[in-house]
Amino acid sequence: MAQTFAFPLTLNHVLETGLARAGAHRIHGADGTSRSYPEFAARVARFGAALAGMGLRPGAVIGMLDFDTPAYLEAFFAVPMSGAVLHTINLRLSPEQLVYTINHAEDDVLIVNRALAPLLAAVWDELRPGMQLVFLGEGDTGGLPDGIDFEDWLAAGDPAHVFPDLPEDSEATLFYTTGTTGLPKGVHFTQRQLVLHTFALAAVFGSAPHGSFGPSDVYLPLTPMFHVHAWGLPYLATMLGVTQVYPGRFQPDVTLGLLRTHGVTFTHCVPTILQMLMQEAGEDRTALQGLKMIIGGSALPQTLARAAMDRGVDIFTGYGMSETGPVLTLALLTPEELARPVEEQVTRRVLTGRTIPFVSIRVVTPEMEDVPHDGKTAGEVVVRAPWLTADYLKNAEASEDLWAGGWLHTGDIAVMHADGMLQITDRLKDVIKTGGEWVSSLALEDMLRPHPSVRDVAVVAVPDAKWGERPLAVVVPSEGGLDVAALKAELQKHVDKGDLPRFGIPERFEAIDDLPKTSVGKIDKKVLRARFAA
Amino acid sequence: MAQTFAFPLTLNHVLETGLARAGAHRIHGADGTSRSYPEFAARVARFGAALAGMGLRPGAVIGMLDFDTPAYLEAFFAVPMSGAVLHTINLRLSPEQLVYTINHAEDDVLIVNRALAPLLAAVWDELRPGMQLVFLGEGDTGGLPDGIDFEDWLAAGDPAHVFPDLPEDSEATLFYTTGTTGLPKGVHFTQRQLVLHTFALAAVFGSAPHGSFGPSDVYLPLTPMFHVHAWGLPYLATMLGVTQVYPGRFQPDVTLGLLRTHGVTFTHCVPTILQMLMQEAGEDRTALQGLKMIIGGSALPQTLARAAMDRGVDIFTGYGMSETGPVLTLALLTPEELARPVEEQVTRRVLTGRTIPFVSIRVVTPEMEDVPHDGKTAGEVVVRAPWLTADYLKNAEASEDLWAGGWLHTGDIAVMHADGMLQITDRLKDVIKTGGEWVSSLALEDMLRPHPSVRDVAVVAVPDAKWGERPLAVVVPSEGGLDVAALKAELQKHVDKGDLPRFGIPERFEAIDDLPKTSVGKIDKKVLRARFAA
Repeated sequence: MAQTFAFPLTLNHVLETGLARAGAHRIHGADGTSRSYPEFAARVARFGAALAGMGLRPGAVIGMLDFDTPAYLEAFFAVPMSGAVLHTINLRLSPEQLVYTINHAEDDVLIVNRALAPLLAAVWDELRPGMQLVFLGEGDTGGLPDGIDFEDWLAAGDPAHVFPDLPEDSEATLFYTTGTTGLPKGVHFTQRQLVLHTFALAAVFGSAPHGSFGPSDVYLPLTPMFHVHAWGLPYLATMLGVTQVYPGRFQPDVTLGLLRTHGVTFTHCVPTILQMLMQEAGEDRTALQGLKMIIGGSALPQTLARAAMDRGVDIFTGYGMSETGPVLTLALLTPEELARPVEEQVTRRVLTGRTIPFVSIRVVTPEMEDVPHDGKTAGEVVVRAPWLTADYLKNAEASEDLWAGGWLHTGDIAVMHADGMLQITDRLKDVIKTGGEWVSSLALEDMLRPHPSVRDVAVVAVPDAKWGERPLAVVVPSEGGLDVAALKAELQKHVDKGDLPRFGIPERFEAIDDLPKTSVGKIDKKVLRARFAA
Repeated sequence: MAQTFAFPLTLNHVLETGLARAGAHRIHGADGTSRSYPEFAARVARFGAALAGMGLRPGAVIGMLDFDTPAYLEAFFAVPMSGAVLHTINLRLSPEQLVYTINHAEDDVLIVNRALAPLLAAVWDELRPGMQLVFLGEGDTGGLPDGIDFEDWLAAGDPAHVFPDLPEDSEATLFYTTGTTGLPKGVHFTQRQLVLHTFALAAVFGSAPHGSFGPSDVYLPLTPMFHVHAWGLPYLATMLGVTQVYPGRFQPDVTLGLLRTHGVTFTHCVPTILQMLMQEAGEDRTALQGLKMIIGGSALPQTLARAAMDRGVDIFTGYGMSETGPVLTLALLTPEELARPVEEQVTRRVLTGRTIPFVSIRVVTPEMEDVPHDGKTAGEVVVRAPWLTADYLKNAEASEDLWAGGWLHTGDIAVMHADGMLQITDRLKDVIKTGGEWVSSLALEDMLRPHPSVRDVAVVAVPDAKWGERPLAVVVPSEGGLDVAALKAELQKHVDKGDLPRFGIPERFEAIDDLPKTSVGKIDKKVLRARFAA
């Protein structure tokens, strides 16, 4: 037989492709480091040599606890290319969740930014014994035992280290999704999945009439690298060989400085981060000018999108979740939509978007029948794509639910428009099922939030003997206090307009000082339901 | 176990992706047909139903003999999606080659354009018995037995036909490379290979600073679809959902009309086709304006590239071969190169190019050692990529040579520049090995061709008792006749400049009326060597 080389879809080729294209582009850190792509690749090789020198078991798990740094990007490549699994640890987890996830993942090595070491030191006695520690950054070990210094470790490694040939189905990354119910669940991805996600992004951003991402762009991530590989964009940036900037711990003023200094053109974040950047920029209307920005994580309010566009930001929504690698859809506009006035564009840019290549999306009834694509009929979003987590790690029951019927269940409720634009209207668990009908908690919140007596609001379902569930509005009132009659009258206007069924008006309104938030900054409706269910 | 869907890289998803993105874009034929993407997809489904109705064996081979038509694009999808193999028959083969390839491929069905039926009728008795015939286009069966009419066949098929689920390693396409020695050799590709080639093209064209291919482009192929799937571009065009135009039989005036009528912006061809189009356009300097054009198949002369650029064509070279699916490199310029004057750009645009994503290229000695990347040291180009033919069909010996050492041997001689730009200098078999040194036949031809006494020229190696081989120049002289002394003097100038070693000047020059050509229009050096070897 001929020695045909069956080319695997592995991450080393993403790195090689970037190396071949990068030219003079560099990878910068907020700490002032600046390296060419060949220097970056040499550090990845040293990193691989250092791991090989540890004599780890095949498929060893390397936990990483860090901000968005160049070292994290090095780990994105070096760890999977070594045949190990990169466990990206969420630095916003509670101490209990930290213990649970590190022990559940069975981490063999922890690479820890010294500034974050106290998080681990506080729970060190509860963590599995025998883990090797590697420290990044400046300072002391924050109460942790001594370990290896990352830079010393790399310096001792061979920059010409040859990585092993690996099959494309090698496990590459692992992290935990906390959700709002139950224990954290481990989602994991193979090298093939990461490569195909990268190619699909390259295809869609390459051929986009706006919001494109190409070799002249300068990239800076504003989502944590522990959160679904910073949405996979660092892999794309590296394959394209573009200039990259890693901002470290998020500080609005520092980030604004980096955007300006490096001429950053492409980023992505949650709405809260955008809001903080705009606040920091204040009267400087040009601080964000020319930025292309994907918004995800939670719904993008039209007012925020419009404000960003007025500052010259090319803003659009992306949709996905931890389980989906993450990107499923992007709200990139068509040339026809781009020709419309800004106020019309905004209504499209905040939608959930259209599928990227090789994503199959259906909006279905509980019986898995497709709902009409009429922009009105809601159903659950179920998906297939080449980069979805195969299951939850060591959790067969939740995996069965996730993949019921051979489609990944997102738990999101959406309508599909005739032109293929998807619009998420709710989380399945946030929908209020009342008298056999669905009422959207998000829609109710959107109707209540603009009222002058409301600073913030969350609507949750509470059990009801007669109707199954009823909506309850939890309001952070503005200075005048909670005015239930005014809010009911506000909602009645929507009933009169036909936006809301009559039974959608809550009987109960409760005041609260602050809405509880989850570790990733979303409103924690689980807590609200528990508190107000009685 | 959860019913995780292991998403295969199959062509149905290329089609689905295009459908989701096409909007109002259409697929046009030179015969005046014009169909939306949903109409195209319905015809693909009908095609699949028609094939299913034939009760073919799994992996059946469907031979297709046609010009570049919308029906061919339908076959690109319907045949592989049905689990059959599409054998794209080269309509320029000799009768003997036609018989050999159809019998070797074991075609079960032949789909034949009636205008090309006489080619098959002439050898019908020598072809394997029992093949079913399907006829495309107008006219009679040209001497072939009666068969099914393609349009009737499709009309009877179910437009909601559901294709079978297939593994990504399903064989999809097959065709024959004739080369210049021996019998035609069958190269074949799986669905996975075609999909990954499409994604790599999407990534590179999407992020190109010029010569980009995106959703606003209008595509027309000017290379035959039987030749390596028209370089794979129809798959890319379909995945992007762009407007496509299929020109049918190549006629320069008709093609120019189609370019104008449809506002075509992206095409690809061999240099000869470009020359014919420019000749046809004559004084109309705007006929080709705004076209992005990949040139491949044979070297792009700088003069031709410059002439095309002067007419507003964004022209650049692509490199690959039948065995490589085909694209390996593209001579797309960097933003820095694009900023240079046109006459400098030309020297880069005619080079072989830089690797596209996931192509590993080495330039090696016969001992498989890498030559220095100095733009001077020549070696053979060997490659790996996810879309190279696994072997020659039923030809173990040639397959061994092709994949010797686990790298695909292109048989091309090249130098690699320090900036990653590859420059093919010769075919391995066209290099003249004289006295232990290599002399490039292409370089000699380039030095001789501009001389006023030369209309055309080919340099081949002839055996030599003392030196092993010696160069021989076969010249088509212009009206003054062959002037050997003048040509030797011309070459001596290059020796004096250091462009050519002293022993590179041929002793023998022979005159010829016309250079013999292969079925794909390349100079047939095999014939020249046979004729002048004595």
